[in-house]
Amino acid sequence: MTAKWRTTLATLSFGAALGASTSRLWGPSGGQEEQPAVGLLGRLPVVPVPNVHAAYELTLSRPSGGAVMKYGFPSLSNIRTRESYVSSYDPRTRTPAWVIERLGGDTLGGNADRKRCDFKEDDSVHVFHRATNGDYRGSGLDRGHMAAAANHKWSQKAMDDTFYLTNVAPQNPHMNQNAWNNLEKLCRSLTKLYANVYVCTGPLYLPSQEADGKLYVHYQVLGTNHIAVPTHFFKVLVLERDGRQGGVELRSYVLPNEPVDEKIPLERFLVPIETIERASGLLFLPNIVRTSGGAVTAAANK
Amino acid sequence: MTAKWRTTLATLSFGAALGASTSRLWGPSGGQEEQPAVGLLGRLPVVPVPNVHAAYELTLSRPSGGAVMKYGFPSLSNIRTRESYVSSYDPRTRTPAWVIERLGGDTLGGNADRKRCDFKEDDSVHVFHRATNGDYRGSGLDRGHMAAAANHKWSQKAMDDTFYLTNVAPQNPHMNQNAWNNLEKLCRSLTKLYANVYVCTGPLYLPSQEADGKLYVHYQVLGTNHIAVPTHFFKVLVLERDGRQGGVELRSYVLPNEPVDEKIPLERFLVPIETIERASGLLFLPNIVRTSGGAVTAAANK
Repeated sequence: MTAKWRTTLATLSFGAALGASTSRLWGPSGGQEEQPAVGLLGRLPVVPVPNVHAAYELTLSRPSGGAVMKYGFPSLSNIRTRESYVSSYDPRTRTPAWVIERLGGDTLGGNADRKRCDFKEDDSVHVFHRATNGDYRGSGLDRGHMAAAANHKWSQKAMDDTFYLTNVAPQNPHMNQNAWNNLEKLCRSLTKLYANVYVCTGPLYLPSQEADGKLYVHYQVLGTNHIAVPTHFFKVLVLERDGRQGGVELRSYVLPNEPVDEKIPLERFLVPIETIERASGLLFLPNIVRTSGGAVTAAANK
Repeated sequence: MTAKWRTTLATLSFGAALGASTSRLWGPSGGQEEQPAVGLLGRLPVVPVPNVHAAYELTLSRPSGGAVMKYGFPSLSNIRTRESYVSSYDPRTRTPAWVIERLGGDTLGGNADRKRCDFKEDDSVHVFHRATNGDYRGSGLDRGHMAAAANHKWSQKAMDDTFYLTNVAPQNPHMNQNAWNNLEKLCRSLTKLYANVYVCTGPLYLPSQEADGKLYVHYQVLGTNHIAVPTHFFKVLVLERDGRQGGVELRSYVLPNEPVDEKIPLERFLVPIETIERASGLLFLPNIVRTSGGAVTAAANK
């Protein structure tokens, strides 16, 4: 963990008014955690929600049932629905604001082949605000998937759709191919324990303290269309033990967009969901109301 | 004009693929232009639009007619309507994305008194994304109005509403109280020449080239809620000679959020509207279609 990441996290915690919880988040930890480790997670900000009223039923053409937006929209800007995900595009940064997908045993299996996929411009975005492959060329950064290609082997079209540049943001290659890839694998492995795994992924632009003691946001932009390079990425997971009823469990991760030592357990990157909501400008799970004490309770039926 | 502003403008021009027009924008100029100077403006990117079909008729409670959104929405995110303006809020930066108002002889006169106004939090914004007066305190920056208070003397409520922090962004005090104030005065003075003056105002976060030769966006954030300090501000003016029919004229200004020498004529800050559209992620005047040559023509009746 670099000094820069430490500084940013302190900032993030400050901004989110987390204070006391910081040491708990970033204290000593057990060994590497690539697979679900429910016991360990009891000490971490994994939020159990005993009873949830999920009202949103926008469905995608999935092999089986599953309302991808069951737990609401994090925002209502520039929504697009694809075969494999729902997304919101930020035309100023030329990256997604968020992308939501549902994973289950039914989406992971199949014959879709990544070799048949190419990254492609999304011509539903006005040419003034559209990312192009040329913008990424020579940048040394990867075109990082928000909804991961390997989550959607169930249909070639579903996998193809993850290659739209509106599902992509610039990622550090080491991070993308190691720690981030491990986080994507973890999401898939959670389908063994949960009936439905809803994953919302997006970029963050977090401030850091500079030499003058003030906080600044600082990020590169790529190419002639000025594609923003996020400082961090988040994944918010909503884990349903039972597709039809019962509670859910929330896990929210933030990874820095820089080389991340694979030896650091992924659980170390868990943060309270409020941290991501403050930093991203989004609100997750609109059907779930927080009590003043910070605990989460089920919303009254609206 | 500082070196920093020069660098950013080169960047802006690059991003907007303006190339050849840069020297025209920033070449030698005549004397100070505080009042409308139609002759001079013929050489500048003031775009006449001979015939316009304006379909949007969202009206505010104005002393006389005038659909503030007559020329469309620059975006559809987090729209709010107030007594004196329509705005879109960016919950990530905690500043407006844009604010549109209509000025006319009917809005400028009246007895509303700025001394009776106080800056106030907007509790229609979730507390995670809300700017507070405390965030600005001690920052050395002004709470800069997007829709200007002095544009809305026609009603105390209309003026009061301009003091919501959702109509405000952090501004350099020198710039706010001098060059920006002059631009606001210019907007008001244009009501003598035009029946309706539509003004859309908002922040920009423009990249600059840094020592490594790459482009970066760099801006401060204020207070515990991390209010973004924009690098620049824009005003897009739509000038209607006749309230009911006939063409319009467009003028778009970008000012840097730093001390600006009052001796620099405001016309030097005129930029093509496309520059603002690319940088802001917004699209103005959705009813007006650009031809491939860059000229503006009236849209076909949709």
